[in-house]
Amino acid sequence: MTSVLVTGANRGIGFGLTRHLLADPSVAIVIATARNVDTATDLKALSSPNLHIIQLDAASEDSIANAAKKVAEIVGENGLDFLINNAGVAYTMKLNEPIAMAKLNEQLQVNAIAPLIIANKFYPLLKKTAAMKGSAQIAIISSTGGSIETAPMVPKDLQLYTGYFMSKAAVNMLTRRISIEWKEDHIRATCFCPGWVQTDMGSQRAQLTVDDSTIPLIKLILSLTEDHNGKYYRYNGETIPW
Amino acid sequence: MTSVLVTGANRGIGFGLTRHLLADPSVAIVIATARNVDTATDLKALSSPNLHIIQLDAASEDSIANAAKKVAEIVGENGLDFLINNAGVAYTMKLNEPIAMAKLNEQLQVNAIAPLIIANKFYPLLKKTAAMKGSAQIAIISSTGGSIETAPMVPKDLQLYTGYFMSKAAVNMLTRRISIEWKEDHIRATCFCPGWVQTDMGSQRAQLTVDDSTIPLIKLILSLTEDHNGKYYRYNGETIPW
Repeated sequence: MTSVLVTGANRGIGFGLTRHLLADPSVAIVIATARNVDTATDLKALSSPNLHIIQLDAASEDSIANAAKKVAEIVGENGLDFLINNAGVAYTMKLNEPIAMAKLNEQLQVNAIAPLIIANKFYPLLKKTAAMKGSAQIAIISSTGGSIETAPMVPKDLQLYTGYFMSKAAVNMLTRRISIEWKEDHIRATCFCPGWVQTDMGSQRAQLTVDDSTIPLIKLILSLTEDHNGKYYRYNGETIPW
Repeated sequence: MTSVLVTGANRGIGFGLTRHLLADPSVAIVIATARNVDTATDLKALSSPNLHIIQLDAASEDSIANAAKKVAEIVGENGLDFLINNAGVAYTMKLNEPIAMAKLNEQLQVNAIAPLIIANKFYPLLKKTAAMKGSAQIAIISSTGGSIETAPMVPKDLQLYTGYFMSKAAVNMLTRRISIEWKEDHIRATCFCPGWVQTDMGSQRAQLTVDDSTIPLIKLILSLTEDHNGKYYRYNGETIPW
């Protein structure tokens, strides 16, 4: 009776993860969240009895708290096995030109603060599962762009993403902290780069289709063990340096 | 005619750096910034002809822009040689207890966003110096706590600083990005851990006095070369992994 929640599930990588979760016989409950449920037409079209679509706006603490309440009703006494933090935004900027502060702040909020708040609000549900089954897992969809060590390898035409990279370094630190602080609760955290994927964010120039990324990625997430706790992987299982 | 600006200079490490800069015969202009100049009594008591005290509130984009204008008037055609981003705050939190959002956001703003805005607004002054003298240097006072790789080594009683550590990982990424993106402008960026210092932030339990940290730290900053660009050091020159 595995339950999995995916944020930002209405399109792109989140939608791909949701589709492959619904196709996995080991997964009984898939909770897909979207900022706006009314316009999440692709999600609604999936119409699986295992699928629950709920509203979650990563920029709003109240919305996250409400989502946690709804998820508690759906999963009941079994708690939540997997929490996949996928919702994210990417805005460009140039370090030596006027900076759009509202975009910069929103990006940090959605990509780094929201995963912290989501982890915080869903902690009781994850803890419940971990106590019963021995573990619960948080998976954070980060980016290779969050790797401080490999920053010099970022191609020149992606150098406009400084604010995005900062938000991903911050959420990598969050992953690491959760893996340490909740170790005794048997709640694990692992972060991932989905690769450069053909989505609204990745554009059609990207190397991978959504399936190229999300089929191996969801397989990897569902098979995570204590060995993967607090680590950073590409969708294909390769380790990324911090 | 070396000019150096230090943010958050009215107390703690910033005040220590300012004192030792004023004692250094190679430094002709020391610009010390404080959020509140009226209450910066220790700074005012230094009364050196080389010292300029100006207002800079790291949480305010307008305040940063105004400070850049005032600094342009002080340094004139020589530009700014060193920009030391020292202003920072540290608040505790617990990942599985209610989180004070205002504090968390302020911390990210002051520790990670402000250094980006400050770099952005002071870019013309740094570029001017770099064009004339061959280099200008940004020094960012970060923390070993910002190291994602060494996160498991953080002592258990400092585990309350997840939000702080996230902000420092983000500013480490900023350092790295500036070191890459402004390389052609010959503007360098390097980040530092000042050690655990006896200040309001570090408490009196800390291992180092302000002088123990800031005497070697200011010497290190003033002697930085291209080899140090985009790297992460302790106050004593030891390298820190990202």
